[in-house]
Parts: sequence; structure tokens; C-alpha cells
Amino acid sequence: MRTVDVATERLLKPYHRPLIRNAWYCAAWSEEISTDLFSRRVLNAPLLLYRTQNGEAVALLDLCPHKLAPLHLGAKVGDSVRCGYHGLEFDSSGRCIRNPQGNGQIPSGAKVRSYPLVERHGVLWVWMGEVERADTNKIPDFSFLLDAGRRTQRGHHEVACNYMMLVENLMDLGHAMFLHRQTGGVSDPSLAENTVEQTDAEIRDSRLHHDKPAPALFAPYLNSGNKVDFWTDIRWSPPAMVLNDVGCAPSGRGRDASGLTTLGAHFLTPETQHTTHYFYAHSRNWAQDKAQIDEVYTSWQRNALKAEDSRISEAIDSALPDALNSDVRMVMLSTDQSGLRVNQVLERMAAAEA
Amino acid sequence: MRTVDVATERLLKPYHRPLIRNAWYCAAWSEEISTDLFSRRVLNAPLLLYRTQNGEAVALLDLCPHKLAPLHLGAKVGDSVRCGYHGLEFDSSGRCIRNPQGNGQIPSGAKVRSYPLVERHGVLWVWMGEVERADTNKIPDFSFLLDAGRRTQRGHHEVACNYMMLVENLMDLGHAMFLHRQTGGVSDPSLAENTVEQTDAEIRDSRLHHDKPAPALFAPYLNSGNKVDFWTDIRWSPPAMVLNDVGCAPSGRGRDASGLTTLGAHFLTPETQHTTHYFYAHSRNWAQDKAQIDEVYTSWQRNALKAEDSRISEAIDSALPDALNSDVRMVMLSTDQSGLRVNQVLERMAAAEA
Amino acid sequence: MRTVDVATERLLKPYHRPLIRNAWYCAAWSEEISTDLFSRRVLNAPLLLYRTQNGEAVALLDLCPHKLAPLHLGAKVGDSVRCGYHGLEFDSSGRCIRNPQGNGQIPSGAKVRSYPLVERHGVLWVWMGEVERADTNKIPDFSFLLDAGRRTQRGHHEVACNYMMLVENLMDLGHAMFLHRQTGGVSDPSLAENTVEQTDAEIRDSRLHHDKPAPALFAPYLNSGNKVDFWTDIRWSPPAMVLNDVGCAPSGRGRDASGLTTLGAHFLTPETQHTTHYFYAHSRNWAQDKAQIDEVYTSWQRNALKAEDSRISEAIDSALPDALNSDVRMVMLSTDQSGLRVNQVLERMAAAEA
Repeated sequence: MRTVDVATERLLKPYHRPLIRNAWYCAAWSEEISTDLFSRRVLNAPLLLYRTQNGEAVALLDLCPHKLAPLHLGAKVGDSVRCGYHGLEFDSSGRCIRNPQGNGQIPSGAKVRSYPLVERHGVLWVWMGEVERADTNKIPDFSFLLDAGRRTQRGHHEVACNYMMLVENLMDLGHAMFLHRQTGGVSDPSLAENTVEQTDAEIRDSRLHHDKPAPALFAPYLNSGNKVDFWTDIRWSPPAMVLNDVGCAPSGRGRDASGLTTLGAHFLTPETQHTTHYFYAHSRNWAQDKAQIDEVYTSWQRNALKAEDSRISEAIDSALPDALNSDVRMVMLSTDQSGLRVNQVLERMAAAEA
Repeated sequence: MRTVDVATERLLKPYHRPLIRNAWYCAAWSEEISTDLFSRRVLNAPLLLYRTQNGEAVALLDLCPHKLAPLHLGAKVGDSVRCGYHGLEFDSSGRCIRNPQGNGQIPSGAKVRSYPLVERHGVLWVWMGEVERADTNKIPDFSFLLDAGRRTQRGHHEVACNYMMLVENLMDLGHAMFLHRQTGGVSDPSLAENTVEQTDAEIRDSRLHHDKPAPALFAPYLNSGNKVDFWTDIRWSPPAMVLNDVGCAPSGRGRDASGLTTLGAHFLTPETQHTTHYFYAHSRNWAQDKAQIDEVYTSWQRNALKAEDSRISEAIDSALPDALNSDVRMVMLSTDQSGLRVNQVLERMAAAEA
Repeated sequence: MRTVDVATERLLKPYHRPLIRNAWYCAAWSEEISTDLFSRRVLNAPLLLYRTQNGEAVALLDLCPHKLAPLHLGAKVGDSVRCGYHGLEFDSSGRCIRNPQGNGQIPSGAKVRSYPLVERHGVLWVWMGEVERADTNKIPDFSFLLDAGRRTQRGHHEVACNYMMLVENLMDLGHAMFLHRQTGGVSDPSLAENTVEQTDAEIRDSRLHHDKPAPALFAPYLNSGNKVDFWTDIRWSPPAMVLNDVGCAPSGRGRDASGLTTLGAHFLTPETQHTTHYFYAHSRNWAQDKAQIDEVYTSWQRNALKAEDSRISEAIDSALPDALNSDVRMVMLSTDQSGLRVNQVLERMAAAEA
């Protein structure tokens, strides 16, 4: 009955696009997973995560193939998991190795699906798609997270929105001076040089402010009171990993080694079509031992990422049906170019999986 | 598989009928809306309500056309609203007047839908349908709400039912002596003269009790201990406005000016198909300065309208699937004639909008 | 797009099978129902249960045919129920006997559906299907529940799962040594003789352990320290009644009268497709006056039945969509034979009702 505006339909499409399966996702921070059984939903599949006694982390489907009992309600037996219902045991590859019931015969084909899981950069990366395509070279570089010369703070929370709302949020930092006005938003982004670069593996949105007074946060830790170049760069790797580089250096020196940088990692792992695990980290090469700067980033993670970005993203997700019911005609801004490119890449990936 | 009884299907139809769009609805009591941003859902659309500095109230769709952020999470800038996400500003007509992002260009067609809003009788009346059909002459007369000679008490709560359950509730006051038995139900309505009148603009259900002892509530404020005529009249204006006139006057004088009357306003504004804003007011021309009478009406609004009428209506709404699953054969009573007429009018209105 | 494994599809079918209507179900324990109005949902129909003044229990559909008000919100008038909304009165057969509104005429066909209800064994058995097929001879024998020579403890709770998960749970007691490991699981069931018998009216799964040391619970109440035969038998009656006989007797004497037995009743009455009323009782012919044995069964009902069986069944019900989304290939064990037979019987019953 109602006809939806064509532009609106196109702009809403990302939030309803099938989730990309052939990709690496952050399933957990390394320290979250021990030899205990741990349950987390990723791409709408319930995962069982744990470490074997030699420390290797594994990811199994968290469902017993006998009666569908969640395996995390069972127990560890050595490196195996024993279902808490009838006692079937599965080794860390998912193979059934014991049936304590009846004739004791292990049914042929009794196994739990195992997912490729790689530990790198302090992250457990899981591959939910076709196993033969799981190429660890495609995990983007987040080695700064384990750089001993940096101070890194990280955390995690869940957001009730499609992951693309958080990706788009990060691809356009222009929201900072409005959404994060109270929490420390940056100065007018329209003053910055803005370039967008795209390769097969990533999209970079770089913004450089030339020859400005040093931002208040960095100023006390620079060697001089001279003006600086200040940058806020974003690197997106498909489907849901964002590196955010915010820093400054003496004017004219560019993003060189002497600069102060805070590198942010943002992993937006879809839990379901409309809920997302938001893993975040901030890693700085300056004032590493200053508790008051720790507090700045703790507060930013709690207030800006959680209270502001996540709240507005949830409000938007809730409003999706309204956009269609109420004949909204959505519009794009020039600063949405990076987000548009991200969606074009993901649209191709989704089409290839269809 | 299951065949639904024809009468039942017809009697359940009103609760599933599409909501009428070309009509005035109470969006808020005047005093609810200030220059602050206020959000309320009407006819399943999220509305942003606020006043400009000169006091004029406006209703905009509460969605930014850029990324669908709810505008009420933003801020006022003069008479405009600034989106809390990327800072787009919209004037009180919904036109985008500022884009602080990137090249600063305002996208052609960037505007927020504005809804006709009229302030009258202390009510903000909104029109959710075709703008060119919004005729303010169709707002029914509730001027008594601002009558300085009357004492008026009003309020508002939400009910988890289709609005028609509350309309039908009011169209048959015979429920009072059962549902409101504890809260002050009237005497046997079958003793009353009952007439039903219908015009293009309203349906009136009038009940007059001749020559009765004055009802206990009114008796102390009458000039004599003589018998009275006592009436309980209902006037319905489509789609969801009800005026309830309860009063008494010396026997044989009819509903004349010397009578004591309490006029009730009941605005049943659909929030969604199965939730309703219930705005109510009671306005009396007697004992205007008596706190104990204020308390009678406060209690009635809290106990009869909220605890009793709304609770039973919510139970009925919850039971709708059961009526179909359990082969109920519904029946009508003679006292359902007014409700039947109301539904016939609304059925025609809905058909005209389909 | 996704193809579901054939075996998995077949094993999941029981949980989505339409509920069986032509059968007796436990609607309540006798003591739950008095002359007061009581509401409970059975097979997705809201039931009104109460007793007349001569003690006879009745089951009516808990919906007034006038406006669908739940009748349990009304009041008793003698043996009749008066709707709390407009005051229609229905006798205990469901016939409308009074209309206090308007012309007072009782609409032809104004009646509330009445369901056959039989009180036997301390249970109110309800028949939700075709009335003419309600044969009380089909109520299985649970007379032990009222046996004055036994001590019986019973209770009830709701479980958020399809009833078949609880039926299958009981048909394979092999889960006890894993799921109930903490709460007193029995020893290895693979040591037992296991027979499965099937008649038109029931399926029996019998497990006998020959010449074993007496189980710790029973040992103090046996006349000697000699070894015993120990059995854990299950009798299922369609669709949702299970009798569990756990006992022991001196070796070689079989299940004779001198044995100690605890008979369990488990009535799994579907509330909806995915919620179940779990009525349970334990009835022993030994240590009838020992409070510490009472506490053993109270604890078992609370911890094993409620915390363990019901929790795992709820987890499984929640996992049903995951089983399809995640390409699980389900497997059967030899001990699932009884459950398989139960499902075959129910599949035929459902087909006959389709």
C-alpha cells in the first residue's frame, strides 16, 4: 500500500543485509577464555569457548547433537567436554569419544561442529564460514594491542543494534562534536583535510588538521608549546574491525614516529541480526604510567562508546520500522562517503555468499 | 483448519481495523508541552512535540532523515531542533537549515515531516493524515475544559489495548454497576430512558432517570431535598473522543442551566494498534472549591478509569487470540447498539482511507 | 537456502507437533480448586476452574462471549459465575442465565464452552477435545496417589518448554547419573536389565538391577543387610502421563509385595506449544512417618525436577532455532528407543486429529 522512498530503501538495506560468514570476527579477548566452559553467541550461533590444558583455545557449537543440551551446562573432563544431560563426551575437535548410555556405542557421525579459532593480538578470532576458506593472513594487523611500549585498556559490552550502525558511527567521526559534546568531542571536523583510500583489504578515512594548538589532552605530554598537526584516522577492515588512530606531532612533521598516538581497536561482532558485541581497546604511546590518563580512557569507553554511541545506535535500530511506516525520505551527507564504500564492499561480500 | 464463527469474526473486526489517519487526535494536554523536546508515539509514528519561543506548539516526526536518530535526543537551538548525532538542524516547520558536517551543503529534500497541530480547549490536537484535509472545524467542542466557572481535573495514562475497547467501554455505561461496583457504580441503568441519536459528526447515547432521589454525591449541593431528574449522557465524536455528561436537576426541569453537571472528556488516542493513550478530564459546575469532591474525582480517575476500565480492556486485548483459537461464539446485547453504530461509522472511514 | 539434515528434522518434529486434543490431561491437583474462581491455561485455552457448593469441579472457557472479559475477574453467585464487566451470569454448565443490561433478554446461543472434567486419584482430569469421545475409562490408573498406606508428596511448577522434552527426559532415566549427579543420581544404568513393552494404552521401560547392595536411601528401612534387586521402571500413558516406579526387594524376589517402592507421578500438561505445567508426586510405602525422608523427596522435587530437569529442558527449547540455523546433525542412542516409541504413538494420534 505504502511506497517506500527509493533512497531510503537503499540506505536501510545495510541493517537487513545477511551477516557475512566468510570472515574473521573477534569472539573474545584472550583473557576472557580459560579452561572453564564459556558460552557466547556469534553470528546467531551459540559458541562454546574454552582452552585445553596446553592453553590452546577452541570454539565448538554449544549444542549436544543428541538432545540439543547446551554443552556449557556440562563439565570439562581433561580437554574434553562432557554433556551435562546424558554424559556424551566430545574432544576439543568436537569428536564424540564416549557414550556412557545403554550399549555404549558411539553413533556414527556423532560430532559437534568445530570452528577455526586463532589467537593473535590478544584476540580470539573465529571463522564462522566455510572452513577451507579460513585464511589467517586475512586477519588485519592489530599487533599494537600487545605492544609492550604502549598502555592498552580494553573492554566489552553488548549493544542492541545491527553491527552496521556501529560501523557507520565509526566511519564518520564528525558525530563526535555533537554526540560526544559532553564527553570530550573534538573540534570542528570540517576544518580537516579529508582523504579516503580504498584497497582490497581496507578503507581508510584520514583527517589531518594542520598547524593547530595541541589538543588539551595531549598538550601536557608534548615537548613544546608549539603548534601541531593533529589527525583522526580510521581504517576499516571487513566486515567489522575498525582501527582508529588519533594523534598529534609537531607541525609539518606529519604522522611520524615522534608523535603521540592513541590507537583504538573497535571490533563489532554480530551476535544476531540486531545485537552486537562491541569489543574496544585504547592503546597509547604516551603517559603510559599516568593513572589520570587511564581514567580519561576508562571514562571515554564508559560514557562515549557505551552511553552515547551505543544508546543512539540502539535508538536507531528501534526506529527502523518507523522509517518505513512514516514515509521518511532519508538523505546522505558528503561525510557519508566512507560508510557508503564500506557498504558497497559488504554488499559484494554478501552477494558472493548468497 | 478451524472455522471462525461469523458473528465473532465481525465483533472482533474493530480491534484489528486499520487506524483512522484523517482525523484529529489529542496528542497532549497543553501543559505537558513546553519549549523542551518531548517525545510521544501517536498512530504508530514517533512524534516530537515542543513549543517555539512565542508559545506555538509544533509536531514533527521524531526521526532525523540522515541516520534516523530520534530528534528528541538532540537539543533546542532557538526555535529549531538540532539532531544529537551529527548536528543537522531543523526549523519548527521541519526544514533543514544547517549541516555542520563536511562541505556543509544541505541535501535537497532534507526535511522532517511536520504534522498539523492545533491548540484548543487546553488540548494539542494533531492530524496524522493528509495535510490538505486537516479542517479545524472538525475538532469537536470541548470548550468546557477551559470554562472558568467549572472545576476541571485531568490526567493521562497508557493502556495496553486497542483504543476501541475503551471507546466501547464508554459507549455502554451499563458496565458501571458491575465493573465499578466497588468504586461507586451508578444504580440500575435499565431503569433509565435511553435514546440514541446520530448525526454526521457524532453519536449520542442519552439516559435519563425521572424523578429519583438525588444521587448521594450530588445531594448535599442541591438547593432542596426534592427528587431530581438524573442523566448519564455520552457523546462520541469520531474517531476517539467521548464527552460524558452526568448530572441532575429538580424533577421536570430537564437538563437545564440550574442543574449540577460533571462533564467528562475521554480522548482515546491510539499509540499503536494495541496500545492507547487515555487522556481524561472531569469538569464540574458545582462544589468547585471542595477538596473532598476533588478527591472523589481523583480517586475515580485512578481507580475506575485506570484500575478497572483499563485493566479489563487490557485483559480483553490479551484474549483476542484465544477467542479465535477456542471457537468462541460471541453475542451482542441490546445495549451494544451505540457501540455498533460507532463501529459502522469507523468502518466507513477506514474503507475510505484504504 | 540452508538444507536441514533429515535425521535432525525428524528428531525435532515432536517439539513442533500439534498438541493432542482428544486426551485426558491433569488440569490441577484436587486441592488447588475450591469454590473460588481459578484460572489456568491448558492446551492454549484459558480455563476457569471452580467447585460448585456440592463440591463438583467444573471447567469453563475463561472468556465471556459478550466482550471476551476473562470470567475469573468476575464473581461467584451461588454456583454460577457473574462476568465482572457487564454482569452476564453463567451457570456451571456454561449456560447464560441472566442479562442485567438493557432489555434483559438473554441472547440465543449465549453460552460459555464447558469441558469434561473428572476428579479421580486426587487429580482433576480435563478433556479438551471432542466431547463425545471423552471416555473416562481411558484415564490411566494413578490410584496409588490416594492410597492411605502410602505417604504422598506433590507439587507443581511451570516449565518454559514443549511438553515432549519433559516426556523424553522421563523415558530415559540414564540422564540421572549426569544431570542429577549432585542431587542423588542412581548408579550406572548400563548395568541394568532393560525391557521395553508396548500395549495400546501404554509403553513400559523397565530396568532391573539384580543382586546389588541396597541403595543408600532404602537400606536403613530394609529388614536385612542382604543384597537386593533394584528397579527403576517407567510407564508412559498418552499423551503426557508418566508413572515412575523405583524400588527394591530382597534378591530373587522380584517386584513383590514385600518390596519398598516409591511411585512417582509426572503429568506434563501443555500450557502452550512451548510451555508446560509439570505436576509431580512421590508416593512411598516405607518410612511413611519419617520427616527426613519427606525432606529427601521435597528436595528432589525442588532440585532435580525443577532446577535440573526443567532448566535443561528450557535450554533445549530455546536452542531449537539454533539447531536449524547451525546445521546440527542430531544422533540417537540405543536408550532413546522408548522415547522413539512414544513419539510414534503421538504421531499417529496427531495425524488422526489433523
